[in-house]
Amino acid sequence: METLSALLDPRTVAVIGASDEAARIGGRPIDYMTRLGFQGRILPVNPKRKVVQGLTAYESVAALPETPDVAIIAVPASAAAQAVEQLAERGTKAAIMFSAGFAEMGGEGVAAQEAMLASARRHGMRLLGPNCLGLFNVRSGFFGTFTTSLERGPPVPGPIGIASQSGAYGMHLFGLARDHRLGLSCVVTTGNEADLNIGHMIGWMAQDPGTEVIAAYAEGIRDAESFLAALELARRNRKPVVMMKVGRSAVGSAAARSHTASIAGDDAVTDAVLAEYGVVRARTTEEMLDIARLATRRIYPAGNSLGVLTISGGAGVLISDAADAIGLPMPEMPEAAQAALREALPFCAPQNPVDCTAQALNDLSLVGRFADALVQDGGYQSILAFFTHAGGAASVAPRLRAELKAVRDAHPDRLFVLSVLADPHLVEQFEADGFTVFEDPSRAVVAIHAMGRFGDAFAVPPRETPVAGAAVALPATTPSEAEAKRILGRAGIEAAPERACAEVESAVAAAEAIGFPVVLKILSPDILHKSEIGGVLLNVADAAAVREGFALLMQRAAKAAPDARIEGVLVAKQLSGGVECILGVHRDPVFGPVAMFGLGGIFVEILKDVSFRRCPFGEAEAERMIRSIKGAPLLLGARGRPPADIPALARMLSRLSAFAHQAGPRLSGIDLNPVFAMPAGQGAFAADAVIDIAENDA
Amino acid sequence: METLSALLDPRTVAVIGASDEAARIGGRPIDYMTRLGFQGRILPVNPKRKVVQGLTAYESVAALPETPDVAIIAVPASAAAQAVEQLAERGTKAAIMFSAGFAEMGGEGVAAQEAMLASARRHGMRLLGPNCLGLFNVRSGFFGTFTTSLERGPPVPGPIGIASQSGAYGMHLFGLARDHRLGLSCVVTTGNEADLNIGHMIGWMAQDPGTEVIAAYAEGIRDAESFLAALELARRNRKPVVMMKVGRSAVGSAAARSHTASIAGDDAVTDAVLAEYGVVRARTTEEMLDIARLATRRIYPAGNSLGVLTISGGAGVLISDAADAIGLPMPEMPEAAQAALREALPFCAPQNPVDCTAQALNDLSLVGRFADALVQDGGYQSILAFFTHAGGAASVAPRLRAELKAVRDAHPDRLFVLSVLADPHLVEQFEADGFTVFEDPSRAVVAIHAMGRFGDAFAVPPRETPVAGAAVALPATTPSEAEAKRILGRAGIEAAPERACAEVESAVAAAEAIGFPVVLKILSPDILHKSEIGGVLLNVADAAAVREGFALLMQRAAKAAPDARIEGVLVAKQLSGGVECILGVHRDPVFGPVAMFGLGGIFVEILKDVSFRRCPFGEAEAERMIRSIKGAPLLLGARGRPPADIPALARMLSRLSAFAHQAGPRLSGIDLNPVFAMPAGQGAFAADAVIDIAENDA
Repeated sequence: METLSALLDPRTVAVIGASDEAARIGGRPIDYMTRLGFQGRILPVNPKRKVVQGLTAYESVAALPETPDVAIIAVPASAAAQAVEQLAERGTKAAIMFSAGFAEMGGEGVAAQEAMLASARRHGMRLLGPNCLGLFNVRSGFFGTFTTSLERGPPVPGPIGIASQSGAYGMHLFGLARDHRLGLSCVVTTGNEADLNIGHMIGWMAQDPGTEVIAAYAEGIRDAESFLAALELARRNRKPVVMMKVGRSAVGSAAARSHTASIAGDDAVTDAVLAEYGVVRARTTEEMLDIARLATRRIYPAGNSLGVLTISGGAGVLISDAADAIGLPMPEMPEAAQAALREALPFCAPQNPVDCTAQALNDLSLVGRFADALVQDGGYQSILAFFTHAGGAASVAPRLRAELKAVRDAHPDRLFVLSVLADPHLVEQFEADGFTVFEDPSRAVVAIHAMGRFGDAFAVPPRETPVAGAAVALPATTPSEAEAKRILGRAGIEAAPERACAEVESAVAAAEAIGFPVVLKILSPDILHKSEIGGVLLNVADAAAVREGFALLMQRAAKAAPDARIEGVLVAKQLSGGVECILGVHRDPVFGPVAMFGLGGIFVEILKDVSFRRCPFGEAEAERMIRSIKGAPLLLGARGRPPADIPALARMLSRLSAFAHQAGPRLSGIDLNPVFAMPAGQGAFAADAVIDIAENDA
Repeated sequence: METLSALLDPRTVAVIGASDEAARIGGRPIDYMTRLGFQGRILPVNPKRKVVQGLTAYESVAALPETPDVAIIAVPASAAAQAVEQLAERGTKAAIMFSAGFAEMGGEGVAAQEAMLASARRHGMRLLGPNCLGLFNVRSGFFGTFTTSLERGPPVPGPIGIASQSGAYGMHLFGLARDHRLGLSCVVTTGNEADLNIGHMIGWMAQDPGTEVIAAYAEGIRDAESFLAALELARRNRKPVVMMKVGRSAVGSAAARSHTASIAGDDAVTDAVLAEYGVVRARTTEEMLDIARLATRRIYPAGNSLGVLTISGGAGVLISDAADAIGLPMPEMPEAAQAALREALPFCAPQNPVDCTAQALNDLSLVGRFADALVQDGGYQSILAFFTHAGGAASVAPRLRAELKAVRDAHPDRLFVLSVLADPHLVEQFEADGFTVFEDPSRAVVAIHAMGRFGDAFAVPPRETPVAGAAVALPATTPSEAEAKRILGRAGIEAAPERACAEVESAVAAAEAIGFPVVLKILSPDILHKSEIGGVLLNVADAAAVREGFALLMQRAAKAAPDARIEGVLVAKQLSGGVECILGVHRDPVFGPVAMFGLGGIFVEILKDVSFRRCPFGEAEAERMIRSIKGAPLLLGARGRPPADIPALARMLSRLSAFAHQAGPRLSGIDLNPVFAMPAGQGAFAADAVIDIAENDA
């Protein structure tokens, strides 16, 4: 963090390639810092000039009178490597590299970036960029950036930190924030992320006393460790993180790859990871800034609920729809409180939304009375009051403010949001009173909901310690089904009773021991997808059918995969009466092994009704995963079925996650498909198992 | 329409209850009209004053020097009825009733409203309201409203008409439109809708030459006929309708009922009806105004596609995500065009989004070149260009405008949208050049998508003529299953082969004739839900099992429903190999019979994966309905199944819709559940049928 503070909050900054012209890349940072009052020392480096923009310039890094905390490198790529070397040798803690022409160009650019990084690392110097627009720290006036977006005006100081991989979009965010008077602590763009990445930047903000709210924009996460550590630190410090992670769509992912060399990752995995850390994923820029703005109130109600006060029934309905759509509860007012309000104002509608009607504008003490009832009787954590243009009318506003402020001041723990149409000066007064003002009530609902999600995330302890699994020894190559089941069996993951049988009469004996009907499956380490070659026979009813089936499978295998090693046939109990599920693991390139749960068949293949979690996790988390899919009612006893054995299913899923975690990077994936979740108390059994080994990494 | 023009565009207006005080309900319309330049004549009626706000006042309706086109009634409910009677007698064409205290109060209010309506109707006078905020016509300066929202400034004239059931929300919309400089033609609020409703208002706007775009807000539709006729007229006249229909959620619907005496209807039905007429349903106020604003360009591209020009790769990804999420296609640029752009600017990313990078800002002719390539080579109907703050920079804007305008002017048929951060005067210049400017590119994508939906709706002819069904004769009471199938069979809706058998040996004979296995079902007009009492036996394999089953059903029926009339047992073919579907009809209180299609079982019950259409409709429409559900792949041959007989299914659904349409209001509902869609060429058969008769209406 000290090194990062040298980068983000330096006392001395060198500018390599300093220009006397304020509009050039090497001139803009000096211009911004001198005009906007940088509190530290600026050391321009320019071999051709003694003075740059009125400041003493130095001809080289060696000639600098002191070692800078940070250096801004604004020279072409060809000269940048040497500058990095000289700065690093001199003990500079960090460099901000504007220079383009590195990894984003591919080929030689990648090699040049790596060489430069190596030379920085030898001396412990950190790099931001290359190919970035830099950063700025509003509090200290440090403007290590050449963005033109500052031309239209400086930032408004405040508690929101912005971290963006994209330079242009990061500065678009800054421009929007400035235009809408959102207070910022710092803006950082990370460009190629040769060294420092968006995780490091979020992590620094998470411990920066000047930053209370973090807004991040990313196209791909390069390093799970720094990213997750940063999110965990932010959560521990009760700093909400709102994030746009773009590249959701196929077309979006393609664009993300061509933009920087980003790994877009699987969007569903990203969703699961962000949700786990309480990060709210914004769908649009507007939503991100709305959420960041409301978050600056620092009121994060766990178990959020919404009470609505309105002078328009129509707006009340609209707000109810919006809250319902996003899952923000709007419980009814208690009966007694409703009766009291009806007594105060006969034609009000006091359920929730509480419609005090335009009548209340004739006697504004009613507004105070109603607002107080929402807080005290309704007990809502969040209040949204809709007054539209009436709240902005000169005849109404002063008394309305006084009534609302009295309630607001008496309940500083509640979140109060107003939807009014008013002139800017009046909006500022409402804001100063402690209300956040949204023109559009639907946008307010989305932001209020996010505050509750932050509160819930801050309230839960970090994820429970996962079950300790047995040591995992993976075979050298992808194992057969039977072997896969044995390996998983040692980790406590149960399969349906079965026996591997090399020849036909042992298969008959096995079937008789297990009990008819049975399933017969071809047994080969070389045939992964048995059903595709007709290698699975269901409902085999008696000994004769076993003999017939055995022969049929041998024949099909010989035809479809003549080179496969055939070890015989697997005889397994035919399970019935359970619910077909799928449990799986796949290795995400960023977040490592990720477990998946879904119902079998069409639910996975057509409806994509599945949930994901980073491995490992405990049984409680596994149960949440199971219950989170849309088809969960089918496991809970819908349509007259008996409820399934959820605890057994959760145990299996948690054990699978621990197994995947301990198996290391050679494990590419696991498929348990189907798993039969039997009726409550009767367990869950994998009817098939595939373990995929990455043989190249062995 | 003439009468409505008297209401919305009068030459002479009487104000009943005219007040000399500008801030009173009876004073505001006069104040607004005199200050804002009403082009017609104002006739104040006030028994106590000779002059009101400088205008000659009249002591009664009888004393008026001429018959007004419209009267504003601003007296209490107690005096309103008499005013209506006098005005109607005098031949006034319409009245705007501010007065509250009618149907919204229930009880006597309802009766008073009906009496008043009857007296108006006797003389052919139309009523707006009561309990409404009135209306205004921007072009003529007719302000028949007492809203306070005009205090903060008058409307900006323009082509958007606003119709709202809610007064307060309608004026909230007006306030937003004014604050954001959206040009309006008129604003109408309909209140209790005793007579004129939101459909009438949309219909008037659909033929008003001054209105090009219609924005509507509704809580419930009272009259399908006027509403649908208005939507059809708007479509025919190529006037887009964007609508908020609130009350989507359960809680929202409850609030809607308590607000006015609205019928919220079924939200899925509303969705289907609006989609059919090409109405775009906005989720938020902001979205509604965004769409209305872009629609004023009057460019509605059928078969819309989006080309994106950006100087930020990050923004390109974000826009791709937004387009993908809403279903707006972004096809790639042709290969040759990509190669040409790469030649012009080596480090561009020319697929689509087309990233010309910040490099293009150094040579703005590149922007023109790239924009032209998107239009000419890409052929996109809509172009979104992202220039963020660079588009607002003084050093860039003039040349950027010139480059973009040249392309814009050469292609007036294309929709051009800019996302820039710029000062208001520059935004106005871009707008004057023919670009609609959105700060947030995600909002732009939603609005652009809506323009395509309008274009598609304008391009299709009205719904095809439905199949002509046979005359329908419903029985007096709810028929038995067998009778229901016979009735539907006459309409060409096939059931599985079956026979009704009064006694056991005829059941055995029927089963042998139909072929085993069969299904046995208890046959009784008094038992609607047979499976609930164990009244259905599946897979009955032979004659002995038929005898056993017959006895068992008789026993179960006697126990569960001792008073039921038992007609015997239905013996039906046990269908297998088909896909289970559900076809149904329910009678929507507003839109009449509505057909539903879904897959059987869990798809309907848990996933609610169904589609709706107003009856009647043809087979092509039925097939669109079938294909629109998420689980449709299951019918099209997913998971190795044979594709189902979609034409037979569509035929059945269309015939069902024609049957329901012809059956009239005594038909409460129909359930065909399950229907087996057999493999292609083998038909579709109802395995069960329930026809529900509304016996009260008989």
